[in-house]
Amino acid sequence: MIVRPKVNWLRMLFVWNGSVLQSIIPQLLFMLMLSLLALATSGRIFGGKMLLNTAPFTLMGVSLAIFLAFRNTASYDRYLEARNAWGHLLVATRSLTSQVMCYLPQDDVGFQRKVFVGRMIAMIYALKHQLRKTDASADLARYLPPEELAEIQSKHYKPVALINKLHASLGDLQRQQAISDHTLWLCNQQLNELSAVVGACERITNTPIPFVYGVLLHRTVYAYCILLPFGLVDTIGIITPLISVFVAYTLIALEAIASEIAEPFGTEPNNLALDALTRTIERSILELNGQAMPDETVARQRFQMT
Amino acid sequence: MIVRPKVNWLRMLFVWNGSVLQSIIPQLLFMLMLSLLALATSGRIFGGKMLLNTAPFTLMGVSLAIFLAFRNTASYDRYLEARNAWGHLLVATRSLTSQVMCYLPQDDVGFQRKVFVGRMIAMIYALKHQLRKTDASADLARYLPPEELAEIQSKHYKPVALINKLHASLGDLQRQQAISDHTLWLCNQQLNELSAVVGACERITNTPIPFVYGVLLHRTVYAYCILLPFGLVDTIGIITPLISVFVAYTLIALEAIASEIAEPFGTEPNNLALDALTRTIERSILELNGQAMPDETVARQRFQMT
Amino acid sequence: MIVRPKVNWLRMLFVWNGSVLQSIIPQLLFMLMLSLLALATSGRIFGGKMLLNTAPFTLMGVSLAIFLAFRNTASYDRYLEARNAWGHLLVATRSLTSQVMCYLPQDDVGFQRKVFVGRMIAMIYALKHQLRKTDASADLARYLPPEELAEIQSKHYKPVALINKLHASLGDLQRQQAISDHTLWLCNQQLNELSAVVGACERITNTPIPFVYGVLLHRTVYAYCILLPFGLVDTIGIITPLISVFVAYTLIALEAIASEIAEPFGTEPNNLALDALTRTIERSILELNGQAMPDETVARQRFQMT
Amino acid sequence: MIVRPKVNWLRMLFVWNGSVLQSIIPQLLFMLMLSLLALATSGRIFGGKMLLNTAPFTLMGVSLAIFLAFRNTASYDRYLEARNAWGHLLVATRSLTSQVMCYLPQDDVGFQRKVFVGRMIAMIYALKHQLRKTDASADLARYLPPEELAEIQSKHYKPVALINKLHASLGDLQRQQAISDHTLWLCNQQLNELSAVVGACERITNTPIPFVYGVLLHRTVYAYCILLPFGLVDTIGIITPLISVFVAYTLIALEAIASEIAEPFGTEPNNLALDALTRTIERSILELNGQAMPDETVARQRFQMT
Amino acid sequence: MIVRPKVNWLRMLFVWNGSVLQSIIPQLLFMLMLSLLALATSGRIFGGKMLLNTAPFTLMGVSLAIFLAFRNTASYDRYLEARNAWGHLLVATRSLTSQVMCYLPQDDVGFQRKVFVGRMIAMIYALKHQLRKTDASADLARYLPPEELAEIQSKHYKPVALINKLHASLGDLQRQQAISDHTLWLCNQQLNELSAVVGACERITNTPIPFVYGVLLHRTVYAYCILLPFGLVDTIGIITPLISVFVAYTLIALEAIASEIAEPFGTEPNNLALDALTRTIERSILELNGQAMPDETVARQRFQMT
Repeated sequence: MIVRPKVNWLRMLFVWNGSVLQSIIPQLLFMLMLSLLALATSGRIFGGKMLLNTAPFTLMGVSLAIFLAFRNTASYDRYLEARNAWGHLLVATRSLTSQVMCYLPQDDVGFQRKVFVGRMIAMIYALKHQLRKTDASADLARYLPPEELAEIQSKHYKPVALINKLHASLGDLQRQQAISDHTLWLCNQQLNELSAVVGACERITNTPIPFVYGVLLHRTVYAYCILLPFGLVDTIGIITPLISVFVAYTLIALEAIASEIAEPFGTEPNNLALDALTRTIERSILELNGQAMPDETVARQRFQMT
Repeated sequence: MIVRPKVNWLRMLFVWNGSVLQSIIPQLLFMLMLSLLALATSGRIFGGKMLLNTAPFTLMGVSLAIFLAFRNTASYDRYLEARNAWGHLLVATRSLTSQVMCYLPQDDVGFQRKVFVGRMIAMIYALKHQLRKTDASADLARYLPPEELAEIQSKHYKPVALINKLHASLGDLQRQQAISDHTLWLCNQQLNELSAVVGACERITNTPIPFVYGVLLHRTVYAYCILLPFGLVDTIGIITPLISVFVAYTLIALEAIASEIAEPFGTEPNNLALDALTRTIERSILELNGQAMPDETVARQRFQMT
Repeated sequence: MIVRPKVNWLRMLFVWNGSVLQSIIPQLLFMLMLSLLALATSGRIFGGKMLLNTAPFTLMGVSLAIFLAFRNTASYDRYLEARNAWGHLLVATRSLTSQVMCYLPQDDVGFQRKVFVGRMIAMIYALKHQLRKTDASADLARYLPPEELAEIQSKHYKPVALINKLHASLGDLQRQQAISDHTLWLCNQQLNELSAVVGACERITNTPIPFVYGVLLHRTVYAYCILLPFGLVDTIGIITPLISVFVAYTLIALEAIASEIAEPFGTEPNNLALDALTRTIERSILELNGQAMPDETVARQRFQMT
Repeated sequence: MIVRPKVNWLRMLFVWNGSVLQSIIPQLLFMLMLSLLALATSGRIFGGKMLLNTAPFTLMGVSLAIFLAFRNTASYDRYLEARNAWGHLLVATRSLTSQVMCYLPQDDVGFQRKVFVGRMIAMIYALKHQLRKTDASADLARYLPPEELAEIQSKHYKPVALINKLHASLGDLQRQQAISDHTLWLCNQQLNELSAVVGACERITNTPIPFVYGVLLHRTVYAYCILLPFGLVDTIGIITPLISVFVAYTLIALEAIASEIAEPFGTEPNNLALDALTRTIERSILELNGQAMPDETVARQRFQMT
Repeated sequence: MIVRPKVNWLRMLFVWNGSVLQSIIPQLLFMLMLSLLALATSGRIFGGKMLLNTAPFTLMGVSLAIFLAFRNTASYDRYLEARNAWGHLLVATRSLTSQVMCYLPQDDVGFQRKVFVGRMIAMIYALKHQLRKTDASADLARYLPPEELAEIQSKHYKPVALINKLHASLGDLQRQQAISDHTLWLCNQQLNELSAVVGACERITNTPIPFVYGVLLHRTVYAYCILLPFGLVDTIGIITPLISVFVAYTLIALEAIASEIAEPFGTEPNNLALDALTRTIERSILELNGQAMPDETVARQRFQMT
């Protein structure tokens, strides 16, 4: 995620970090060469004159607009949904912590608040690492005793296994009649909330926007951009390259952004800052539980947070 | 569902598997012939000159854009809704399993955790087979004893009957006072969640997008595509076939995709991978219950999952 | 509702049943005559030349597109909302039946499962008949004893009165301490769900899309269509009638569809198949309760279900 | 709200009541004069020729379409949200009445069903009058005893005070152990629902769509309409006034409708019929409670309900 | 927030306060100079003629419309979400207050209603100040005793700490058996609602719309506006500056509004009036609790509320 202070309108035109420009330079160079070719040959190809004018582009624009708008909206919805899921994580873990602290009995019945809260934080880290396909050991080891760490590491669905362990410790308390049915109910509700978030994240990761949309949009964008200089050169002459490359920039950039944002759990510049989100949850839970907080994650160089 | 690793922008232009191209080749050939005809006759038909130019297409484009955008959005919403329903299945079965494992009494009151969990998995398979109109026997037999299998097979609404059996086993426990009212409440809530998913899937299957939209869109798309070469030939001459077929491709392809995606429970390339989803739920539930997991479903040839 | 098997792309162009064409033939004939007039007079009216060209239509197209897209989306949302409401009916009645069967005491406390379930089915029929303003007596008589039937028939809000009777029989059980507070809670939750559906259906019926939108859209569509041949005749000559009538068809058809779909509880071809939905709920509830099921509703001639 | 029976397509073109036409006549006359001026001077102003053609209007159309579509959707969403809120009122008061009638003890513990239900109806009227800024005394006096009426009238947030009184009477019952905790829970849930509706209505009333959107849209619409005749006169000559005024009608009418609908609790023709809605709730509650019902509200002259 | 009485349609064209005009004057002056330059040189730059006409702008308009519409919708959704969150705050605090007043025991068990309600109001102020990054001390001191104020001030997540204190006082009551599990449940539900609102507000504040969208839209808008006069000057001559600056005004204004509204918790003219919202909640809670109310916040000069 890019977090930049507000930029003056003039400087904003030339922003480099946080723009998607750097990743689409090859394509834009290709478009530039094509439009120079169109200019040099006055739109002739293979000796013959392309009679293209701008009319067909207005017609093609209908499909193009529908595909681009749909793709962008569908991608952004995935991004928002992912962000909301992590927002629910924060809310549910806070509520669960408050309930465990205020409504559960004191520690002398064998219930260790700190252990419970640690497991909850471990679950957040396990989810983050599962979504990013990274190794969770180091983070889990900070909150789980070695034997529990080994047990969790042997599981395929790690966050689910940790939520199940939280369920189990509540069930034990209830069997000892240390907590009432109602309190179990309250805490169970928050655990189900955590479970719903894990399910939502897995859903976003495992089911992409149907592949066929991407193919269709890609072809439409490139056909449009490749033909464009030949359609414009008769009308606007010398500035054809400028206009062609600029139009190509807007279309290809939007396609690139939509494709990046549709997989929001990655580490690309416009993905969610899961590291920062995880740290925020950890800090808030620890503060609630009266424990020392680690530092906040700050934006790295180039205004980027991961 | 097509699951492909990311493809280079140049190769993406020529992707074959996962594109809808193969299914609309007859229509595109028809359009190609039409536009060659328009080119050969310079737009004359029955001896007379069609005075068509691009202006009417801009006007027709208004309706076309509204129909296409609406149809595509309505179809994709059905796809998403279906996917979300199956996501809820995963979440509800996991929560129910955790609750049954951690809050219910030990097996000596006659409650067999494994039987309960097996029935739950059978319910998932029954739903999948009902949605795909395939035979559920083989999958149900893996989890149900023969007499229960026979009973379920005699029912018309199989997943509902299985959910009812889950209700019944909880009701029995409560009558024996083996579980408290609260625990019944907690588990019943998840069963109602399963019931809601079954209802949502039946709704998507039984009530298509009103047929009349399909007819209207179909006619508009084809009228537009059939007239197009005659409107373009005077202006852009020799490249009329290229542009006409390309515009036809974008429109007909979008119509085809929307129509495929609107019935998300089928087995076409862009439908939901119900086989893989069912297997994921099965694996996760079995792992939670400490039983051996079957292998994950992997993409078959041509990147396709069913 | 039209339920047709998939139609070949070529035949789909000439579908008659399920198309809205038959209901807008007078308007299209009127447009045809107008465009023939425009052709015959070369756009002259009252001796003077209309200087119309296609430019004003592009400008009018902005309002037109906004009105049509909005009207269509708003209508379809009402259709979906109505369908979802009936989907919730199915889910809530199933859950209620399972709960009544599995969690309630045996019949010896004076609670007749079959009476309770019958009242629930009667409530569904009462709702259907209220929404369609038809007489519910015959259907209610199948499930209610005569005196109760008379009582319900004397009420103005019949489905509400039946839900209240369901509440009352649960309240009686609780007063006899035959069911626990929790079980009452569970069943009451489903009754409230039924109540919410009744309220949602009444809302859709009683509050149409503001009338003024219909007027504005209607005028814009017809002004556009009436002027169109005079704007096109100079440019495209002899094929003006073809294009004009086709554009008129797309616009007037969409207006007609949107207006039909916005009142989803009627019996027009694209309204909800309430008869079939009611029958499905009845069948599923009876099967759950172990009673004989009536046959499924099948599509009548011309692929139509009511 | 305008409630009209379906109108023939030809008569619909000349509908007067329910159209927004009457409220925008001054603006349309102004546009007519402008376009006559443009026609008379052939687009010359201050002796010089305006070189305007239709091209700039296509460009301005982009902003215009975005503003109009956004404004209209945002306004309609407010209208729908307001309608849904009142729909929830109906559902929640019905459920609460059923629960109070069926699950609460008989009147001998000092609980007067009729008083409770009367307070609930009074709350609905108090909300209506608060939203319309009218005097609630007459309606409240029908359901509240004088001293309670005086107490409520002294409050600033009247519906909230009445909901609080309903809470208080339930709390009293619980303290006397006349109702169980569960029943309190059930009724409290409906009271919270009422509270949510009151909050939603206050939100819609107190926070309009940001003022700045209205200004921007207004300026764009009028600049577009004022310039339009000067852009059209060269191309379409004598029928410039017709087209200009018609385009102005569609744009200004949509702006007027959107602005009317965005404040749905007023008494303008396209606002919600709060009088009728309140009466419906009152009737349904009284019927449930076995009391006599007042008559239904019927549409006044000109098909209008308030 | 701007709260203005309805303005006459003519005066509305010249509204100054509440328009975004004042903040984009530099950009508009720049555009004016550019278009005068284009006019003076007849579109020649560096001695050469720019052959631009309006055709490329229609093509660029596709991207522009998609970017603007998306950006505006995404921003307005954030605004609405923020407003809804504060609406939920009002509803949840009212319900909690009623529940605490009516269902909790009298003060003799050491529970101070006034202290509890004060803490709740302090929590609202803490949230407001956190969102605006202002100092909460003065407002908190009105409702918290000094030692509690100091404790809260030492926390990083202040509203969360206050909600936790509310949880704790309920937990104490339960441990003393002064309230039943059910009542705890009811109040806890409202506390979780408050917690969800805090989480939603933090989410809106911490995760902006991806930066890259802003860059892309900004560049497209400015490229379009800068090129526009050169494209128009040949066609519309002397009125090029008028049209160019007006089109630039609509585009740049919408960009500015969207950017302002996307961060709804600030103090700019179109941000939420958090001061007024906080005061409304405070007043309503105090009235419910029978305490004296402070005055309502009124719009300051220039119709602005903060």
